[in-house]
Amino acid sequence: MSLIEETIAAVRPLDEAAVREAREHQARLTKPPGSLGVLEEVSVRLAGLAGRCPPPLPEPAAVAIFAADHGVHAQGVTPWPQEVTAQMVANFLAGGAVVNAFAGQVGATVTVVDVGVAAELGPAPGLLARKVAPGTADMTEGPAMTPGQARQAMETGIEVARDLAGDGARCLLTGDMGIANTTASAALIAAFTGLPPERVTGRGTGIDDRTHAHKVEVVRAALARHGLLPTPDSGRSGTAPVTRPEAERILAAVGGLEHAALAGFILGAAALRVPVVLDGVIAGAAALVAAAMAPDVLGACVAGHRSAEPGHSATVGHLGLRPLVDLELRLGEGTGALLALPLVQGAVRVLHEVATFDSAGVSGKDPGRSHDTITE
Amino acid sequence: MSLIEETIAAVRPLDEAAVREAREHQARLTKPPGSLGVLEEVSVRLAGLAGRCPPPLPEPAAVAIFAADHGVHAQGVTPWPQEVTAQMVANFLAGGAVVNAFAGQVGATVTVVDVGVAAELGPAPGLLARKVAPGTADMTEGPAMTPGQARQAMETGIEVARDLAGDGARCLLTGDMGIANTTASAALIAAFTGLPPERVTGRGTGIDDRTHAHKVEVVRAALARHGLLPTPDSGRSGTAPVTRPEAERILAAVGGLEHAALAGFILGAAALRVPVVLDGVIAGAAALVAAAMAPDVLGACVAGHRSAEPGHSATVGHLGLRPLVDLELRLGEGTGALLALPLVQGAVRVLHEVATFDSAGVSGKDPGRSHDTITE
Repeated sequence: MSLIEETIAAVRPLDEAAVREAREHQARLTKPPGSLGVLEEVSVRLAGLAGRCPPPLPEPAAVAIFAADHGVHAQGVTPWPQEVTAQMVANFLAGGAVVNAFAGQVGATVTVVDVGVAAELGPAPGLLARKVAPGTADMTEGPAMTPGQARQAMETGIEVARDLAGDGARCLLTGDMGIANTTASAALIAAFTGLPPERVTGRGTGIDDRTHAHKVEVVRAALARHGLLPTPDSGRSGTAPVTRPEAERILAAVGGLEHAALAGFILGAAALRVPVVLDGVIAGAAALVAAAMAPDVLGACVAGHRSAEPGHSATVGHLGLRPLVDLELRLGEGTGALLALPLVQGAVRVLHEVATFDSAGVSGKDPGRSHDTITE
Repeated sequence: MSLIEETIAAVRPLDEAAVREAREHQARLTKPPGSLGVLEEVSVRLAGLAGRCPPPLPEPAAVAIFAADHGVHAQGVTPWPQEVTAQMVANFLAGGAVVNAFAGQVGATVTVVDVGVAAELGPAPGLLARKVAPGTADMTEGPAMTPGQARQAMETGIEVARDLAGDGARCLLTGDMGIANTTASAALIAAFTGLPPERVTGRGTGIDDRTHAHKVEVVRAALARHGLLPTPDSGRSGTAPVTRPEAERILAAVGGLEHAALAGFILGAAALRVPVVLDGVIAGAAALVAAAMAPDVLGACVAGHRSAEPGHSATVGHLGLRPLVDLELRLGEGTGALLALPLVQGAVRVLHEVATFDSAGVSGKDPGRSHDTITE
């Protein structure tokens, strides 16, 4: 079996006994039942992933930033020059980006993985040189990647997940960098959800109306070029699950090298039963690929935040994930995942540290006490 | 001047020069303008509060849990017995509650302030004995507090804010504990916003339909008893600002001792120009009181989270605050504020640590590059 097939085979459903145990334990803790809202579900899911309650605390954490360029940049979908990808990689390595500030605050390590930056990058501490190609081809003119390139990038992502977990990380976070990557993300999201390009194509780093309208048409042209445009008679309604071979074809046709690597990273984390906190729209698009290949991968995924990109809300809705942070961020890099990390850690910490009604001597609700039994 | 008047006089508007400087600095940082969404506004506000850019990092942080009981408990508004207030105080002091787990994670200190617990509490490390009365009177039968009690509790809150800041805290967080305190909160919120009781009265810790319907009627009766029921002919539409004497009257009529103390705590923080992260619906109700007394207090307030209580959404809407965490929490104790703290700290850290385009050698947007100037 290849690394990809082996990884997919290792992705399993949540452990039901641990899920049940976590739910029962939540009900015994000194707080009104359900009063931690969404975080209770996060704690239950992570118990099911680990197969025990409490699950290990999701720390230390490691963010992997997969960096790559996009051939579709030539179509004028963004005012940012392509060299910004390499410049921001240098900024990450120098510790000057927002992702560095947020990672430092929560004690997460930052690893940058060059899977497809167009420029040559010299060796540097914190940089993994795993370039598959100097950027993808222009998806409006042909497939963005060959099948072999897409698989090689996926394998890279799996290996990075394994290596970070092997170095002790108990929580993996996705990061990404690549000028024009919201364009490729929109194409992937349209192909996997069956939504039309205008519904899933956003303003990325911030573009004017005219560039945005053009970007929608570029996404539409790419989808049409590869027979992926959702139309009433194409059968691409988003309701039928995408098969694994079709997911690989879509990925190679309109995805980025970082999308492929991120899909592998997510699969790799799930196979290791390590939670993976997804950043925004780029990670969401990659999660669509990973979930089509191994649906149980979603048990390991926590949606870190809801991006301002419209395609991201469509993605988390399609995947049934509830984002933890919802603050109109649209930066990428892994920043949304890092902001969510303390919420995930807090959710699990409750199962480790909070007293039960019995142990703390706190009275529970009195079921006989309601307004019609009070005599005062 | 009394402590309250002196504190109110010290609350000032944001420093406009620092606000402007923070906005300009955000625009120079290596990220697309606006891409940190709501967090950029938080950083700008805290610069304005501190009067300099960057403002101090909001750490270390201190949460003060104001605990008190409520005479309206006798009306059967909750199935939880009143002694749970004191039992949970013991749990906080033993480190067994959710607030302790979350505070430990972010390195915040926890101080419990007894401003009105019905039971006698022995001395304990971490407990401030500031009992004004052993709980309020039943607001459906008369004022919950005398004017003197309300002022004494407010002064306690101001003093706690001063003491914690004096001990080095650079961010204050509100906490609360008191069985039946969502009932008093609903009454305060209805009185300040002009919304009817059924719109602002929630299920608190979780009550059945019948108890909830009864709770709404209890809130309505209390408001009617004190001439605070919003009706078309009462002039209580919520559109006219509440005067300061009227705010004090409302507070004493239907508030809790912890609401009064929290209002003082918020005023005290603002007077010291220290940010205060509000927890949920109890703190929100107290912020309505504080804002009526000194509208500029809101410049110091960050809404930590959006509670599942309907009255809380009405409150933050009325105050123009945007909650940072929105995960259907309804626990109180300060847990929502503690979960928001890393978001506030991250927002400010960006102003301290992130490189500018110039310093990092990153290219900005090319304004001449858009789809119609690309010739490929």
